Amino acid sequence: MTHAIDPVNLARALIAAPSITPATGAVFDVLEEALVPLGFTVERFIDGIEPDGPVENLLAVRKGKGPRHFGFAGHLDVVPPGVGWTGDAFVPEVRGELLYGRGAVDMKGAIAAFVAAVAATPTECGTVSLIITGDEEGAAIFGTRALMEHMDARGIRPDMIVVGEPTSVNRLGDMVKIGRRGSVNIWIDVPGTQGHVAYPHLADNPIPKLVKILAAIDAVSLDAGTDWFQPSNIEFTDIEVGNGATNVIPASARARLSIRFNDRHSGAELIAMVERLAHDVEPRAKVMGKISGEAFLTPPGELSSLVAEAIHAETDVVAEMSTSGGTSDARFLHALCPVVEFGLTNATMHKLDEAVAVEDLHTLTAIYRGVLMRALVD
Amino acid sequence: MTHAIDPVNLARALIAAPSITPATGAVFDVLEEALVPLGFTVERFIDGIEPDGPVENLLAVRKGKGPRHFGFAGHLDVVPPGVGWTGDAFVPEVRGELLYGRGAVDMKGAIAAFVAAVAATPTECGTVSLIITGDEEGAAIFGTRALMEHMDARGIRPDMIVVGEPTSVNRLGDMVKIGRRGSVNIWIDVPGTQGHVAYPHLADNPIPKLVKILAAIDAVSLDAGTDWFQPSNIEFTDIEVGNGATNVIPASARARLSIRFNDRHSGAELIAMVERLAHDVEPRAKVMGKISGEAFLTPPGELSSLVAEAIHAETDVVAEMSTSGGTSDARFLHALCPVVEFGLTNATMHKLDEAVAVEDLHTLTAIYRGVLMRALVD
Repeated sequence: MTHAIDPVNLARALIAAPSITPATGAVFDVLEEALVPLGFTVERFIDGIEPDGPVENLLAVRKGKGPRHFGFAGHLDVVPPGVGWTGDAFVPEVRGELLYGRGAVDMKGAIAAFVAAVAATPTECGTVSLIITGDEEGAAIFGTRALMEHMDARGIRPDMIVVGEPTSVNRLGDMVKIGRRGSVNIWIDVPGTQGHVAYPHLADNPIPKLVKILAAIDAVSLDAGTDWFQPSNIEFTDIEVGNGATNVIPASARARLSIRFNDRHSGAELIAMVERLAHDVEPRAKVMGKISGEAFLTPPGELSSLVAEAIHAETDVVAEMSTSGGTSDARFLHALCPVVEFGLTNATMHKLDEAVAVEDLHTLTAIYRGVLMRALVD
Repeated sequence: MTHAIDPVNLARALIAAPSITPATGAVFDVLEEALVPLGFTVERFIDGIEPDGPVENLLAVRKGKGPRHFGFAGHLDVVPPGVGWTGDAFVPEVRGELLYGRGAVDMKGAIAAFVAAVAATPTECGTVSLIITGDEEGAAIFGTRALMEHMDARGIRPDMIVVGEPTSVNRLGDMVKIGRRGSVNIWIDVPGTQGHVAYPHLADNPIPKLVKILAAIDAVSLDAGTDWFQPSNIEFTDIEVGNGATNVIPASARARLSIRFNDRHSGAELIAMVERLAHDVEPRAKVMGKISGEAFLTPPGELSSLVAEAIHAETDVVAEMSTSGGTSDARFLHALCPVVEFGLTNATMHKLDEAVAVEDLHTLTAIYRGVLMRALVD
């Protein structure tokens, strides 16, 4: 407790170091300067080249006396501010009860709260790590995956990880994410033979075939959901023919779909299913898939319980355990150990005038400290 | 016969006056100078503004002693030459057995043949008209329709019309067109609500609805054809969503289709059918149709018989009576009287090195003369 940290001041310092993805440099200096006095050994390395890099990554470890190892993961990069802020997105400012600035909730505020929580936690307890990247909002190629290789090479492996993403919805503590759906984009290209609409026997129109393929896909029900996941869902996101001429039968037609799927499916299986349905209609159709992430789940257990207990102790809120929403770096980290995500309210993330309640920063600090105490001491 | 005309020389003179759609001026001067000595009263007028005009139109009438009135319709405008001609597209040149030049077959050659045929026809027979526009290959807004209004205002109405379009396929005389299919383009706009693919309950994806609509249209069989028409046919020509983002449910989806239909249908009925099928799936879908032309037929009878007889007398060829292919100004003229189309072979029309066989120009002159004699004298 000799180095008490004010999470609001640290959040301000982090916001004041602009760090649009991919991030390097000053913002990491600010974090390192806060961590070193707390007894952390800090390693930083830069990976990748343009346009998705260079990306800075930071691994900070404070060895504890206890046997347990708690990891906190997050990112210091932010999405671009856009135009129309009331103030300057990178000049943090408290107006009324709110601290404004890009990254206030996603997620410099949560990193500041965690550092303040560690500062208030006895060093006698177990080991604490911070796994911080500058590449979460972007391609995520040179960020958390590079950190995991780095950790693996040093034999560093937490027993549990909390990712500090803004998971709260209406009030701080109302939602903890215990998994995420997988995500795959699939492209279907149907070839044809161009020709004049007046002479269809000389052409081969790809559009009716594409319509049949999409109708077959639309008729698929992947599952009815599980205890922890909503039903897997297929959305058509684009169709492109690109034929400007009203009297021409086009040479090809293309569709794109996005599948968000639960842990009953894998990306590869879903691509194969779409390919099978496409080939049933047109064997020459080309199907290409790109898996953004597989579904994963940390089934409710010790980690989610101690996070929920810490939330309830500080706020009286009963957190919902959820697998909803988009993806995060938890999709990579779950390979190491149980992972849950918990952080600030997400109402203003990625928006103009992103802001966090000053009180929430203090409460989140207390919750994170409660998590640390339960995980490492109790 | 005092003013005998060589169809090859007249065709050369017409080709030498460039007349890309919309056409005016010199090419009409050439035709007028050929017609006046034959006893025609020539009226010319210019209609329309850019970009589809100005368009010149020519109506030439030679009153005859007989009661019948024969009309010949055609156009002096030509499509652009494009790049890659062996010679100059607007410098007519006989090489070997062929006369080269833009418009040689479509359709300055046929106009020259008809004028030569009239020159060889006794003035004692019935009335002959030439209905000539400079706007057939383009928007056709200020051409034949304006001529028809002009004729109506003067009480000029032929008993039958031959349109001199290049209808022959493999050899001169093998095909006469007795009608054409109608043509309509229809656009279907399906509205939706944009959203993130991870939160489909907050969005309304228009693509599955469009797929259902197109599947319903694809299942429609309009007819099995008639004695004189092939089956009506629906072709999807484009689908446009225009969504570049893989994680976004699009706000709208649009499809375009082209229907070529026989005389069992009307454009308005087909648009209404598509609208009904679209509204069955999505009442907010917008359906917009543009009718290029209604189907029409001059059932085999006196006119087609006398054209076929004239062809057979000169060539020994038995002409096929057909309704195949694209549209022509016959779609307007059929409102006046029986109309058939007959002219040169169409293999090189709209192509580089467009050319007509010199012999075909002489034979077509003889056939047109045979048509005139049968229509006006016999």
